[in-house]
Amino acid sequence: MDPNDGFRELGRQECLRLMAQVPVGRILFTRRALPAVRPVTFGLAADGSVLLRTSVTSELVSAIAGAVVAFEADAFDARTRAGWSVVITGTATLVTDPAEHTRLLREGPPSWVPAPDEVFVRVAPELVTGRELAGGRTLHGVELTS
Amino acid sequence: MDPNDGFRELGRQECLRLMAQVPVGRILFTRRALPAVRPVTFGLAADGSVLLRTSVTSELVSAIAGAVVAFEADAFDARTRAGWSVVITGTATLVTDPAEHTRLLREGPPSWVPAPDEVFVRVAPELVTGRELAGGRTLHGVELTS
Repeated sequence: MDPNDGFRELGRQECLRLMAQVPVGRILFTRRALPAVRPVTFGLAADGSVLLRTSVTSELVSAIAGAVVAFEADAFDARTRAGWSVVITGTATLVTDPAEHTRLLREGPPSWVPAPDEVFVRVAPELVTGRELAGGRTLHGVELTS
Repeated sequence: MDPNDGFRELGRQECLRLMAQVPVGRILFTRRALPAVRPVTFGLAADGSVLLRTSVTSELVSAIAGAVVAFEADAFDARTRAGWSVVITGTATLVTDPAEHTRLLREGPPSWVPAPDEVFVRVAPELVTGRELAGGRTLHGVELTS
């Protein structure tokens, strides 16, 4: 981390508490050797695992299943220049256990677009890092945008 | 892209227009062979280049200078389940031309945390892609979070 960019490191529990407050995060993966990102809604398990729900035929599943990915969520207030960013890095695996799949189907709210081929992907919380920016400073100490 | 996840592809000009509306984006890069992400304020040049300002000694500069990176910005409304995400992918280069550096120092608002070693990084808009989600559907058709 940059020692001089105005951020404070967050502990694991702080990270998980903050991430649980937002409905949308971003899954980072590699596609054709290029960095790729996809915003997704998500669930956060008690152990910090990130749970995604998508179609078994989706590009996302084929791109991340079995790969080490990063899942990021953040919130920033442009007015106060305050905010936080949390990243959970770990291996993404398709949930194949029927009992767990059924439990996830039950415990998650109903899908808005039910699909017969819905699957769950779990990102293991192998690395949980986060940073908080206090108000009054901008990211990397700069505000290039008006 | 997933054909069935409720997103609409955006054109290049739509992408740049939307990205110009938000103050903070996310730079995606690789660190120790792992996907990494860092929220940053940014500027958008007329040609779609993304301009970042940071310290020449920052981890970010050493991680992305000369590398192909992705820069993402998005905005989602959890209430209406509508939003957009834009990604600019290209090579990140340190601005070394003194005249351009001076121009960027002048045209950007003053830094909140002036540093003697500020540098600008430009991400070339080699690939500009974006997707819009109409209201009434959730990302990948699901809302796992309450």
